[in-house]
Amino acid sequence: MAFNTEQQPGMTESVAPETRGFRLNHSMLRVKDPQRSLAFYSRVFGMRLLRKLDFPELDFSLYFLAALDEGEVVPEDVDERTRWTFSQRGILELTHNWGTEKDADFRYHDGNSKPQGFGHICFSVPDLDAAVQWLDSHEVPFVKRPDEGGIKHVAFVTDPDGYWIEILEPARLTGLGRS
Amino acid sequence: MAFNTEQQPGMTESVAPETRGFRLNHSMLRVKDPQRSLAFYSRVFGMRLLRKLDFPELDFSLYFLAALDEGEVVPEDVDERTRWTFSQRGILELTHNWGTEKDADFRYHDGNSKPQGFGHICFSVPDLDAAVQWLDSHEVPFVKRPDEGGIKHVAFVTDPDGYWIEILEPARLTGLGRS
Repeated sequence: MAFNTEQQPGMTESVAPETRGFRLNHSMLRVKDPQRSLAFYSRVFGMRLLRKLDFPELDFSLYFLAALDEGEVVPEDVDERTRWTFSQRGILELTHNWGTEKDADFRYHDGNSKPQGFGHICFSVPDLDAAVQWLDSHEVPFVKRPDEGGIKHVAFVTDPDGYWIEILEPARLTGLGRS
Repeated sequence: MAFNTEQQPGMTESVAPETRGFRLNHSMLRVKDPQRSLAFYSRVFGMRLLRKLDFPELDFSLYFLAALDEGEVVPEDVDERTRWTFSQRGILELTHNWGTEKDADFRYHDGNSKPQGFGHICFSVPDLDAAVQWLDSHEVPFVKRPDEGGIKHVAFVTDPDGYWIEILEPARLTGLGRS
């Protein structure tokens, strides 16, 4: 399959058949307190919990969340749902190492202060202004509002662990970073 | 819309209508050398470059990559493709702060050594054994092979910046972490 998109130094010209069916399933973030994080991601971002996996011998649990489209049907059967979950794109995995929620001083590193690495996750929304109003109504802290900073039309907020979440509206980005 | 999936402390029982259309569009990782990262993600994971955005006034570029299904059509027109890109799920954004590739000592933090936070991205594959063979044929470093460690049937490899990439086959995970 040839790329019909963009070429840049390094990019292969075609997709190897051995990679057929590869899907970017999820990104994993460690969270201090799953109850707090589940409340945040379900209430503010409308995410649903597809699977929780417990590993008592290793003292951790994993939570797999998705923001689904209206009418999208998730299998009820747990094995079917497991297969379905791990076949999707754009799942958020939250890892809870048991006990961190009881340690007042415990916190995770957001990747934007030093040492840097991971930057953020991003939600696409149909209406940026309505989303900003919605986030304000839940007192979600803003790192940057749409009209602030060098790049307009995108916002950044933080989740309960301090991870950055970008908010964008696809139709507003067509003029951005044109080379 | 009621959740038909899992309930846990913290989860709301229904999805607020204000979150309709919210999609987990991408995760962002900073990379030292985009040419090296594009070669890796296109060659080994079959990803395509949907958009590159340059910000010369801020000395950085953004690369938006996707592992697409066979036959999936990406708009040719750049504005349409921009809207399409930011409407998808499961996009990988790579950020290149200009000049890091020329600094021999420069490296990003993977989030798994201290201080911890972000953990990994994950590709779902149709055949784990074939994928392991494919990764070995490209000499991709393994953090954990499927038969190693406490959790079988998943592998972890590293990308050129040292970020962890999980590899899993959905059908093999149905017995995992059952509570």
